[in-house]
Amino acid sequence: MIWNTNLRWRLPIACLLLEVALIALFGVFVRYEMDADPHWLEEKVIKNLSTDLENEFYYRYPSFQDVHVMIFVGFGFLMTFLQRYGYSSVGFNFLLAAFGIQWALLMQGWLQSFDGRYILVNLENLINADFCVGSVCVAFGAVLGKVSPVQLLIMTLFQVTLFSINEYILLNLLEVKDSGGSMTIHAFGAYFGLTVAWILYRPNLHHSKERQSSTYYSDLFAMIGTLFLWMYWPSFNSAISNHGDAQHRAVINTYCSLAACVLTSVALSSALHRKGKLDMVHIQNATLAGGVGLGTVAELMVLPFGSLIIGFICGIVSTLGFVYLTPFLESRLRIQDTCGVHNLHGIPGIIGGIAGAVTASIANIDLYGEEGLAYTFGIERSKLNWSPNTQGRFQAAGLFVSLAMALVGGIIVDTQGAEKHCPPF
Amino acid sequence: MIWNTNLRWRLPIACLLLEVALIALFGVFVRYEMDADPHWLEEKVIKNLSTDLENEFYYRYPSFQDVHVMIFVGFGFLMTFLQRYGYSSVGFNFLLAAFGIQWALLMQGWLQSFDGRYILVNLENLINADFCVGSVCVAFGAVLGKVSPVQLLIMTLFQVTLFSINEYILLNLLEVKDSGGSMTIHAFGAYFGLTVAWILYRPNLHHSKERQSSTYYSDLFAMIGTLFLWMYWPSFNSAISNHGDAQHRAVINTYCSLAACVLTSVALSSALHRKGKLDMVHIQNATLAGGVGLGTVAELMVLPFGSLIIGFICGIVSTLGFVYLTPFLESRLRIQDTCGVHNLHGIPGIIGGIAGAVTASIANIDLYGEEGLAYTFGIERSKLNWSPNTQGRFQAAGLFVSLAMALVGGIIVDTQGAEKHCPPF
Amino acid sequence: MIWNTNLRWRLPIACLLLEVALIALFGVFVRYEMDADPHWLEEKVIKNLSTDLENEFYYRYPSFQDVHVMIFVGFGFLMTFLQRYGYSSVGFNFLLAAFGIQWALLMQGWLQSFDGRYILVNLENLINADFCVGSVCVAFGAVLGKVSPVQLLIMTLFQVTLFSINEYILLNLLEVKDSGGSMTIHAFGAYFGLTVAWILYRPNLHHSKERQSSTYYSDLFAMIGTLFLWMYWPSFNSAISNHGDAQHRAVINTYCSLAACVLTSVALSSALHRKGKLDMVHIQNATLAGGVGLGTVAELMVLPFGSLIIGFICGIVSTLGFVYLTPFLESRLRIQDTCGVHNLHGIPGIIGGIAGAVTASIANIDLYGEEGLAYTFGIERSKLNWSPNTQGRFQAAGLFVSLAMALVGGIIVDTQGAEKHCPPF
Repeated sequence: MIWNTNLRWRLPIACLLLEVALIALFGVFVRYEMDADPHWLEEKVIKNLSTDLENEFYYRYPSFQDVHVMIFVGFGFLMTFLQRYGYSSVGFNFLLAAFGIQWALLMQGWLQSFDGRYILVNLENLINADFCVGSVCVAFGAVLGKVSPVQLLIMTLFQVTLFSINEYILLNLLEVKDSGGSMTIHAFGAYFGLTVAWILYRPNLHHSKERQSSTYYSDLFAMIGTLFLWMYWPSFNSAISNHGDAQHRAVINTYCSLAACVLTSVALSSALHRKGKLDMVHIQNATLAGGVGLGTVAELMVLPFGSLIIGFICGIVSTLGFVYLTPFLESRLRIQDTCGVHNLHGIPGIIGGIAGAVTASIANIDLYGEEGLAYTFGIERSKLNWSPNTQGRFQAAGLFVSLAMALVGGIIVDTQGAEKHCPPF
Repeated sequence: MIWNTNLRWRLPIACLLLEVALIALFGVFVRYEMDADPHWLEEKVIKNLSTDLENEFYYRYPSFQDVHVMIFVGFGFLMTFLQRYGYSSVGFNFLLAAFGIQWALLMQGWLQSFDGRYILVNLENLINADFCVGSVCVAFGAVLGKVSPVQLLIMTLFQVTLFSINEYILLNLLEVKDSGGSMTIHAFGAYFGLTVAWILYRPNLHHSKERQSSTYYSDLFAMIGTLFLWMYWPSFNSAISNHGDAQHRAVINTYCSLAACVLTSVALSSALHRKGKLDMVHIQNATLAGGVGLGTVAELMVLPFGSLIIGFICGIVSTLGFVYLTPFLESRLRIQDTCGVHNLHGIPGIIGGIAGAVTASIANIDLYGEEGLAYTFGIERSKLNWSPNTQGRFQAAGLFVSLAMALVGGIIVDTQGAEKHCPPF
Repeated sequence: MIWNTNLRWRLPIACLLLEVALIALFGVFVRYEMDADPHWLEEKVIKNLSTDLENEFYYRYPSFQDVHVMIFVGFGFLMTFLQRYGYSSVGFNFLLAAFGIQWALLMQGWLQSFDGRYILVNLENLINADFCVGSVCVAFGAVLGKVSPVQLLIMTLFQVTLFSINEYILLNLLEVKDSGGSMTIHAFGAYFGLTVAWILYRPNLHHSKERQSSTYYSDLFAMIGTLFLWMYWPSFNSAISNHGDAQHRAVINTYCSLAACVLTSVALSSALHRKGKLDMVHIQNATLAGGVGLGTVAELMVLPFGSLIIGFICGIVSTLGFVYLTPFLESRLRIQDTCGVHNLHGIPGIIGGIAGAVTASIANIDLYGEEGLAYTFGIERSKLNWSPNTQGRFQAAGLFVSLAMALVGGIIVDTQGAEKHCPPF
């Protein structure tokens, strides 16, 4: 690229050019959806809506703000546990997320909210843009400390594009359920990031362990990230669920799963420490795996005890991953997973995808009611010969597609590559 | 207990056993309430509900998330002011709360949401579980630094059980009003914790004052806890109030009380310092007493100036407690109240209970309107010969029951005792 | 004043006297608005409301809590980046805001919610009180480190009074749109604070640069403030907008503007650093300018790309202000703007006011629809010969009035002056 010769000006020029391009594209393509447009007053009369509360805004706004906090404070502070990278994690996360949500509004808009002439946006688009950027934040956790801000912007550009295509395949073509994004957000983000980290492997970074060390205060800052992710995860998994009982159920399920996950994470963390002490990294990360694992099935009929079981398993697997898998990945596969996203988002995301396939394939009218089954799986729309079995297979297919897209996408962005350079903040 | 012999494995085994037991009990007992079940679609037709917004979810969700933040970030970080116990306070609080909400869903469920076969849970159950755990967090503040995580889990098991019974007596038998839990949550939690702390008294801890010292940064972390508690307290006191004007009024009253409380806490803190300076411990704690004191009367007709008066008094009494009462408790009664919960939750909780008795006993049709009075105090249900005077007496009785249950319960858990041991995090 | 002679007792006496006066005034004047009163049950029947959700509470509560967080955590922690003033910024902000909201409920109440006998308060009054105090927090940023808590209370008393009068002139007499308060909150607050700082200029403070220095951790604390302001700004700008599409649109616009602002702030910060590095002060502050600049037009038809353009400009101008204008103000105009509020609230507030005038003057039926136009600008009420052009002129007039009131008010409070004294926390 032409501005390669003058490193000093790369970041300012990249930011300004990207923003100018975004403004031009927004000017041509983006308008308000009817419920955010002053013409809604007329729409209300036509649709015979009796109250302003029927505006989609009131169904989604509290969840939206919670998701927003998870992306910017949750992911931003979660990674501050690395004393050396405190500024980078919060600051770069801020930058990539602010760019990513704008590009996601366009990409997801073209694929899902395009009326032939304009992309019509409302609150649901903002939530989906935040979700998409959540996937980039996951990938960022794998490459933290190995990439410059300009490289991050390029990675975000690619990943958001690919995310939107993958999401379109899963939700629109395969018509899978994935309201909390175990497959589309977490598994996709983690394996995309790990593929990038694999190419960016730097042996010398391997030896500078002290850069990855944490301190008393950096651990407390990280707990801010952990807790806001943990507390608001019920909003994450229910934010774009169907109105009413589905949103309600998704919250209950996620709440249960996360609670169970804390106990098994603590149990394993203490059991695997030679003196029985707790490792803050496990408390900060593995306790969240229950939210990831519950993402696909959140609004399905897993029942509260099913949610507890998923959280139980995710807490164990995730902690084991931190203790045994991360060192293995680094020493044998030369993948430096800075924040351990493979344990928090990768494996639990896969568990979530499998749980979704299983839960869908045992769906029946007893559990859901006739109307409930049709509404939950959107049967009336297109799938006349729908069966739980088919839905289960499509769910499984969705998981494989997500993993494949992540690996291929990660390799593509790497070959576009750029040098391995990371100026400190 | 059999695992007594091998300390190293106690925590992992306790966590795993408890979680397995919880999963089994959830499997047998816990199902979704109708409004979180896919059959709600049919329910809507039967009940002639015109919109999905009539789902209880939309009345309670924003308050629920705020309460959730108070329990995990609020209580967790409030106690980080003790430099020595930063990890313990956030981490152990996380563990006990995650276990406690699951056990509370069962205990409160059996007593209040049992349909003969299943416990039917919805968002209100999640809020009540958080409330119950809030009471445990209060007690934790009194014993912080004196108990091991396994002891905390045992204490949580006992306290949640007792809390649920006490709550059942107050709300279902005595039919008192206590929407913000001055009596059931705060007074109960504080005196339960103080009783436990009394038995756990350790003279040597008395001399290691430096362990209890705070630093610049630990004080700022604690302010995060303080502020999230302070800001979200209106949600706490209104979360399970009646729909409509009652929730609305509870928010206004709590907002007013807390604002007044800040000014009197600051006034007393400065007045009692020999150079007129402010003590961060008072700013971090006493400013919250107005929320505790307002808990019982939150949805009653105290009027805004009545709320200010309650906040005014609580700020003064709480600060005086920190300056004079805490040292007295430690030196004379041998009760080491690590975080001063007696001043923040104990006395203000009693003030709240008294305020509730007074406010209820002066209720009349002028203030509430005929329908309003019946709805607020649930008169139509069972209390045919209801009078404000009776309600006031029952409110006072509720306060005494809570205090008695806390003292007796604290002694019981102590005798179950376990040794006095606290491994650092 | 009589307590001038004994400095030691000033703060306690001021706090107690103010609170007693507030309680008396609340007792005489403040009652619940109908939707927070138990008589609402009868009102529902009269107004033929079918559901409790029609209570104003449910339209506004999530936004209210977000605004509350912005005032206490957002503004409080934003200013902790000054290592020396960590306690002061969080603690004094807490004190002035707690006092200010009570006084604002009275002042704004007399001017806008007075029924001839009582001030009737509901959730909208609480939001407006928080907004008013937001303006005081802005001014506090300019004088941080130069005033004692008692002086802050006096400043708050004056500023809240003046704010309420200015707001009354703009919203009720000039009938301008300013839902996010670019003019009434930000521009007014900034220039009021700068005028006070101008008189409080202390040459010796100029030389003690190290007092203004930040550290690694103080910067991370400040990022907590920044992020909560940034994330919740959509709630701020939409909190008192019209129900339905207007609230919805205000959120989308603010979200877009803030995202764009992050990219241009980063671009300029890097471009203006001689090694291309990022300055944390710009990341902490200039990224928020897009929210300020969008305040006036939030619910108008700026379209998403218009919002991006406003954010684009505000990010650039604000960062330039930090680099060039703040040093100029201090060295030439002897104005020490401790936190750079001129760059974050002053200029972006003016940009917002101008954007409002322009956007209003190009309003038309095509964009808004006939009903939408009438509803958005409240035409049916009083303005029979309303035209976009007139609205634009009134908007511009509103900006000038705000600036004039701020300057005059700042000078008045200064002459009431009090000595220049600031005891450390």
